[in-house]
Amino acid sequence: MSKVGVIMGSTSDLPVMQEAIDFLKSMEIEVEVDIVSAHRTPDKLMDYGKNAHERGIQVVIAGAGGAAHLPGMIASLSPLPVIGVPVKSRNSIDGWDSVLSILQMPAGVPVATVALDGAKNAGILAAQILGASNTAIQQQIIEFKEGLKEKVLKGAQELKDKS
Amino acid sequence: MSKVGVIMGSTSDLPVMQEAIDFLKSMEIEVEVDIVSAHRTPDKLMDYGKNAHERGIQVVIAGAGGAAHLPGMIASLSPLPVIGVPVKSRNSIDGWDSVLSILQMPAGVPVATVALDGAKNAGILAAQILGASNTAIQQQIIEFKEGLKEKVLKGAQELKDKS
Amino acid sequence: MSKVGVIMGSTSDLPVMQEAIDFLKSMEIEVEVDIVSAHRTPDKLMDYGKNAHERGIQVVIAGAGGAAHLPGMIASLSPLPVIGVPVKSRNSIDGWDSVLSILQMPAGVPVATVALDGAKNAGILAAQILGASNTAIQQQIIEFKEGLKEKVLKGAQELKDKS
Amino acid sequence: MSKVGVIMGSTSDLPVMQEAIDFLKSMEIEVEVDIVSAHRTPDKLMDYGKNAHERGIQVVIAGAGGAAHLPGMIASLSPLPVIGVPVKSRNSIDGWDSVLSILQMPAGVPVATVALDGAKNAGILAAQILGASNTAIQQQIIEFKEGLKEKVLKGAQELKDKS
Amino acid sequence: MSKVGVIMGSTSDLPVMQEAIDFLKSMEIEVEVDIVSAHRTPDKLMDYGKNAHERGIQVVIAGAGGAAHLPGMIASLSPLPVIGVPVKSRNSIDGWDSVLSILQMPAGVPVATVALDGAKNAGILAAQILGASNTAIQQQIIEFKEGLKEKVLKGAQELKDKS
Amino acid sequence: MSKVGVIMGSTSDLPVMQEAIDFLKSMEIEVEVDIVSAHRTPDKLMDYGKNAHERGIQVVIAGAGGAAHLPGMIASLSPLPVIGVPVKSRNSIDGWDSVLSILQMPAGVPVATVALDGAKNAGILAAQILGASNTAIQQQIIEFKEGLKEKVLKGAQELKDKS
Amino acid sequence: MSKVGVIMGSTSDLPVMQEAIDFLKSMEIEVEVDIVSAHRTPDKLMDYGKNAHERGIQVVIAGAGGAAHLPGMIASLSPLPVIGVPVKSRNSIDGWDSVLSILQMPAGVPVATVALDGAKNAGILAAQILGASNTAIQQQIIEFKEGLKEKVLKGAQELKDKS
Amino acid sequence: MSKVGVIMGSTSDLPVMQEAIDFLKSMEIEVEVDIVSAHRTPDKLMDYGKNAHERGIQVVIAGAGGAAHLPGMIASLSPLPVIGVPVKSRNSIDGWDSVLSILQMPAGVPVATVALDGAKNAGILAAQILGASNTAIQQQIIEFKEGLKEKVLKGAQELKDKS
Repeated sequence: MSKVGVIMGSTSDLPVMQEAIDFLKSMEIEVEVDIVSAHRTPDKLMDYGKNAHERGIQVVIAGAGGAAHLPGMIASLSPLPVIGVPVKSRNSIDGWDSVLSILQMPAGVPVATVALDGAKNAGILAAQILGASNTAIQQQIIEFKEGLKEKVLKGAQELKDKS
Repeated sequence: MSKVGVIMGSTSDLPVMQEAIDFLKSMEIEVEVDIVSAHRTPDKLMDYGKNAHERGIQVVIAGAGGAAHLPGMIASLSPLPVIGVPVKSRNSIDGWDSVLSILQMPAGVPVATVALDGAKNAGILAAQILGASNTAIQQQIIEFKEGLKEKVLKGAQELKDKS
Repeated sequence: MSKVGVIMGSTSDLPVMQEAIDFLKSMEIEVEVDIVSAHRTPDKLMDYGKNAHERGIQVVIAGAGGAAHLPGMIASLSPLPVIGVPVKSRNSIDGWDSVLSILQMPAGVPVATVALDGAKNAGILAAQILGASNTAIQQQIIEFKEGLKEKVLKGAQELKDKS
Repeated sequence: MSKVGVIMGSTSDLPVMQEAIDFLKSMEIEVEVDIVSAHRTPDKLMDYGKNAHERGIQVVIAGAGGAAHLPGMIASLSPLPVIGVPVKSRNSIDGWDSVLSILQMPAGVPVATVALDGAKNAGILAAQILGASNTAIQQQIIEFKEGLKEKVLKGAQELKDKS
Repeated sequence: MSKVGVIMGSTSDLPVMQEAIDFLKSMEIEVEVDIVSAHRTPDKLMDYGKNAHERGIQVVIAGAGGAAHLPGMIASLSPLPVIGVPVKSRNSIDGWDSVLSILQMPAGVPVATVALDGAKNAGILAAQILGASNTAIQQQIIEFKEGLKEKVLKGAQELKDKS
Repeated sequence: MSKVGVIMGSTSDLPVMQEAIDFLKSMEIEVEVDIVSAHRTPDKLMDYGKNAHERGIQVVIAGAGGAAHLPGMIASLSPLPVIGVPVKSRNSIDGWDSVLSILQMPAGVPVATVALDGAKNAGILAAQILGASNTAIQQQIIEFKEGLKEKVLKGAQELKDKS
Repeated sequence: MSKVGVIMGSTSDLPVMQEAIDFLKSMEIEVEVDIVSAHRTPDKLMDYGKNAHERGIQVVIAGAGGAAHLPGMIASLSPLPVIGVPVKSRNSIDGWDSVLSILQMPAGVPVATVALDGAKNAGILAAQILGASNTAIQQQIIEFKEGLKEKVLKGAQELKDKS
Repeated sequence: MSKVGVIMGSTSDLPVMQEAIDFLKSMEIEVEVDIVSAHRTPDKLMDYGKNAHERGIQVVIAGAGGAAHLPGMIASLSPLPVIGVPVKSRNSIDGWDSVLSILQMPAGVPVATVALDGAKNAGILAAQILGASNTAIQQQIIEFKEGLKEKVLKGAQELKDKS
C-alpha cells in the first residue's frame, strides 16, 4: 500500500498542513504525521531522513516557516522525493523567507516546492507522484480534476442564471 | 521502461534545460524532448497536456521564463506530476516573474517548482519520483548522492592538504 | 453594438471584477460575464479564447489571482485586445505573483495590464479601446473625465471653505 | 487610415521603443513618433495629451524609465487608450521603479501596461486595439499569430531531427 | 513672511498630510493647503506648478499614493524645492509603488522624498529649508530637536526608575 | 555667499558624488567637500554635524552606500536641511539597502532623499533650497530648466528630421 | 560577573526587546537596559558607544526600526560585539527597512543581525557569546537547547496520541 | 589559545570566505578551515556541529549561498555562537535567498548574520566575540578601528590637498 510521510517543524504549522493530510486521506492513501524540527531535534531529523524510505514511505511532505530548513535537510538525507510547503509564520517577512529557503536548493538536492501555505497542493502532488506508477491513483486524480471542473462550470451557470 | 517528458517554451531555453536531459540520460531513463509554447502553440499545449500520460510519460518537466504559463497549464491538463523550472530569460525582472508565475499555483493544480534555472534538480526530482515506486532507480539516486558526498569530502581533503 | 467580455478564474474574484462590469454598464456598453478557469476548465478556456471574436466580442477583460494564467492564455488564443486585472487573492505574496504573471508576457502575446485589483480601470480602458474607433463612446469618456475633475475641484473647495 | 502615436521621454529610450514602431510599420499602420518629456517639456506634454485625438491619433504608446510619469500623464489628459512601456533605464532599481510608476495608476485613469522593455508587445497591442473595430487589421493579427506558431513548430521539428 | 504650499492628490490623503500642516502651524509658518490631482485636474496642476513661486510660496510639500505623479510633475513645473510624501493608499503594493514613483526622478528634476506616510518629516524638512536662510526658524528647529532629546531622556529615566 | 557642504562616507563614493559638486560649481555656489564616515570616523561625524551651520553651511549633501547611516546621523545632529544620496556600492543588494536606510527615517529627523546614485539631482535640490530665499539662484534654476527643455525639443526635432 | 547591555531607540520598542531581557535574566546574566536614540540623543549614543566596555559590559544588544542606525553606530563606536534586532515599526515597509539598514554594514564594522523582531534570539546569542569563554554559561545553553528538544518531542508524542 | 572554525558549503565559496580567514590570521587567532555541506555531507555536518566546542573551537563562521542551511544547522547542533555569511552564488536571486535563509532563524536558534558576501566582517565579529572575555584581543580590535579611522582621515586630507 502507498504511504506518504507528512512532517512539520512545529505544532503551530498543523492548521496549514492539515489540508495535505485531509486530501491524502480522502484518496485513501496512508499518511504518517510527525513533528520533526530541523533546528530543535536534529537527531530525529537525521533519523527520519535516513530511514523514511526503509519504512515504506514513498513521498515526504515537509512544511516549515521562516528560515525553513526542514524540507531541504530531509532532501539531503533521503532518496525520496520531498515536497516543501513554505508556511507563512509569525515574524515572517511576508513569506519570502520560507519561499526562498525552500525553493532555492543547490544543484544535487531538489525540493519540489509548492505555493506559500499550499499544503493542499502538496497533498495532490504526492498523490500524482504515487499515481505516476499506479493507475488506480492516477484515475483518482483524473476524477478529482473532473470535480474541480464541474464546480467551476456550476459557478458559471449560477452566475448566468442570476443575471 | 520509465519515461520523462521534457518540454520548454522556446529553443532559447534549451541551454538551461539540457542539464535535466543530461541527468536523466545518465540514469538511463528515457527522455522525450519537445518545444511547446503555451502562448504560441496553444493547440499543441492542449494536445500534449491531455495525452502525455496516455503515451507512457510518467513525469513532465516544463521550463519557461517571464510570465511562465507552460508548467501550470500542463498541470491543469494532465494527471501527471509536473515539475516547473523557472528560467531567467532576457527582460525578466531578476527571475521573480518566472518564479512566482510557476510557484504560486491555486489550490487544486500543483506544480513541483525547483530553483531558478534549476534544471539539473528537475532531472533529479523526476528520477526520485520514478524511484518512489522503482527500487532500481531509487538505488541509483542513493549512489548519486554518495557521489556528491565523496566530491565534497575530496575538496575538503585538498583544502586541508594545501594549508 | 459594442460588446466586452468580462471573465474571471473563480466566483471569488467577482467582488473585485464587479467594478469593471458596473462601469461598462454605466456607459451602456454590452457586457458578457463568465467564469473561465485556465487551471480547472482548460477546454472552456480554449473555446472562449478561440471564439470570442467570432461572437462579436471586441475586448476581453480577464481577472485572476496568484499564478494568474487566464489573461495570458486568452491573449494567446484570441486576436482581440485582452486587459488583465491582477487580483490580490488569499495566500498571494502581497499581490506580486498575480502582477508579474500577467504583466511579464513574452514578445508576441501582449496583455494590457492594469493596477492590482484595478477592475474599474479595466472597464474604463475597455471603453477607451472601443472609443478609439467610435466617437460617441470617446465623447462619453471625455465627459467621464470631466466628472472626475469636477469631483476633485469640489473637494478642494470644501477643504478651503472649512479652513 | 489608422494612426498610432509613439512617444518617449528621451532619445535614449529609442532603441527600446523602435520595436513598437517597426511592428506597426510592418502592419502598414501609420506611426507618428515624438519625444515628449513629462519632466522637461511639460507644456508639450499638455499639448500632446489634449490634442492627440483631435489629430486623428487613435492609440498612444508611451515609453519611459525610472519614476515614469509620461504614460500616466498622457492618460490623464487624453480620452485615447494609452499603452505604457516601462523602460529599464540607467540607475533604475532593476526596473521596479518604471513598472510600478506606470502600472499602479489610480481609479479613473488607466494605463495599459506591458512588460519591462516590452515595446514590441506595445506595438502588437496597439494593432489589436485598432483591430477591435477593423476586421482587416484583426485578420493581420490572426496571421501574425499563425506565424509565431509556425516558428515554434519549426524549432520543435529541428530539435527532433537533431536528436 | 515664509509660506509653504501643502498639496495632495485626493481628500483621502488628508489624514496623513495633516501632520505636515500641524507641524508647520506649530512653528507659525504660513501654510496654504489645496487638493491638486495630477491625473484628474491636469490644468490645475500646470497652473499650480507654474505659479506657486510667483504667489510667495517658498517650498511645496506634495503627497500622493500609488503611481504617484503629483510631486514629480510639480517639480517639473516649478523652480521651488518640492518635498514628496509617499502615501500608502488602498490597493498599494505595500507602499513600494508610491515610494519608487516619487523617489526615482530622472536627472534634472529632483524631488526631496521622505519616508512612507512621513508627512510630519515633510513639515520639519520644509521648516529646515526655510531655516537655511532664516536664523529665527533655524533656532526653532534647534529647540524642536532639543525637545525630542528631552522626551527620550525622560523615557529612559522612567524605564530606569521602574526597574 | 551661499555655501553647500558635500560629504561622503568613502573616497570610493566620489565618482558618483562629483555630479553634485559639478552642478553647484556651475551655478557658482560655494562647495565644501569632505570625507566623513559614520562608521569609521564617528568623532568627525559628531563635529561636522554639530558645527556645519556655525561655519556658514546652509545645506548638507551626504552620500553613502549599503547600510547608509551618514545622511541620517548628520540630520540627527544638525538643524540644516540634509539631502541624502543612496549610492549603489559593491555588495549592495541592488541598491535597496542604501535607499531604505536613508529614506525611512523616523518622525522628527527627515532626510531629503533623492534617487539611487542621483547626485546631480542632489546638487539641483540644494540650489533650489538656496533659491527658496534667493531670487538670483531661483532665476538660475529657471534658466537651467529652460535648458533641459531646449535639449529635449532639439532631440525631438532631430528625430523628426531623420524620419 | 557577565553583563549585557540592552538598548533600544524608543520605549515603543520595549515590548519586542523584553524577550531578550527575560531570556538573559532566566540565565542569571546581569542586564543593563537603556533607551538610546541615534537620531534624538546623539550625545548619549557617543557616550554609550565609547564607554560601555569600560563599565564592564561585554555584549551590546541594540534594537531599532525603520532606517535603524542605532546598532551600526554603536558598532562604530565600541570594540564590543553588537547584536542588532530589526524591529518592525509603524510605517515600516514590511520590515525590509530595518533589516537592511542593520544587516548591510560596510567592511570593518560588523553588526550581528538576528531575525525581524527576533529579540529572544538576540538574548540567546549574547549568552552564547559569553559562553564562548565561560563553560558554566555554555552548559546552560546546552541545557536550554535540550529543553527545546524535549518540547518538540512532547508535541510530537501528543500528536501521535491524538491520532 | 583562541580558536575559530571557518566552514563553507563548497570550495566555490572560498574566494569570499578567505577574507574572514585572513583577518583572523592577521590578529594571530588560530583558524581551522573546512568544507562542510549541509546538503551533501549531512553526517559530517552532524559531527562538526556536535563536537566543535569539544575540540576547543569558540566561535564558528559558516558561509553558504542560495537556500543556505549550513549556518542554521550548525547553530541547531552547537552551543557555540555561529556567524552566518550569506554568499551571493551563481543562480542566486540577487542574494535575497541566502540572506533570508540565514537571517530569519526561528526563536531558540540564533545565527549572527552579517552582510551579503561580508566575510571580512564575520572575521572581525569573531574577534570581537573572543575579545568580550579577552582584553588582549579587545585591545587589538581597538587598534584595528583606529587604523580604519586613520585611513579615512588620510583620504579626506588627500581630497582637500587636491582641490
